[in-house]
Amino acid sequence: MSAFVLNPAFESTSERLGDLTLSHARFKTDGRFPWIILIPRLSGVEELEDLSAEDRVQLMDEILAAGRAVRAVGEAQGRPVARLNIGMMGNKTPQMHLHVLGRSPSDALWPRPPWGIGETTAYAPGDLALAVAAARTSLGLPSA
Amino acid sequence: MSAFVLNPAFESTSERLGDLTLSHARFKTDGRFPWIILIPRLSGVEELEDLSAEDRVQLMDEILAAGRAVRAVGEAQGRPVARLNIGMMGNKTPQMHLHVLGRSPSDALWPRPPWGIGETTAYAPGDLALAVAAARTSLGLPSA
Repeated sequence: MSAFVLNPAFESTSERLGDLTLSHARFKTDGRFPWIILIPRLSGVEELEDLSAEDRVQLMDEILAAGRAVRAVGEAQGRPVARLNIGMMGNKTPQMHLHVLGRSPSDALWPRPPWGIGETTAYAPGDLALAVAAARTSLGLPSA
Repeated sequence: MSAFVLNPAFESTSERLGDLTLSHARFKTDGRFPWIILIPRLSGVEELEDLSAEDRVQLMDEILAAGRAVRAVGEAQGRPVARLNIGMMGNKTPQMHLHVLGRSPSDALWPRPPWGIGETTAYAPGDLALAVAAARTSLGLPSA
């Protein structure tokens, strides 16, 4: 069994949060939405059926934790999350990953889907640091 | 506790497949992709955190079953599924529901996301009946 290696495509569009029990967690650098990406730290998994039943239960727990963290980021930013949007595609990047992001009727795309529509917005550096810190605190991940 | 009532928004865009242990299953009438919608048959649930831990495990099982059914539909249609796309939004229709659909490099939108992009394509009536029958067979649901 080979070791987990993160697809480099994630590194240019998200910042490392840390490792949960199953998943590597990253914060998507798109200022439109508080957005976490979960990547199970297993080699060669692409679909849910590639995970063991135990890992699927763990993944579900981590989706819930990511949802709480996305809500915490929204609170820290003064834009509370009204609705979670969760997606798993992998059409471009096959390595299994899930998107968990927070939506609000005041966001620019509401109520349209968040994927593949409109343009990514850059965070101001201080705003990104604040969001990442809030996400890590909620997920119980160290700050460094 | 009030009874489950299906949001009528689903009725105009999908066809009833039947009831699984947790979810009402529907087949989306969009000829671009084999596409199943799962709606947990519970009143007042909108987010994963509104489900009990047991129901979340059951939902995960039904997502896997829907994925197998989507693959079976793709086989029946002669367009094998290369990748499952799974999504849960509810920005427009808050009643909790999940999309499970099959993608292929030969589909019109590949590799773009399937939600909110492009136009729904109508099925020819015979093609829809074939797809619904294949989905029901895979899910172990009766044909009527």
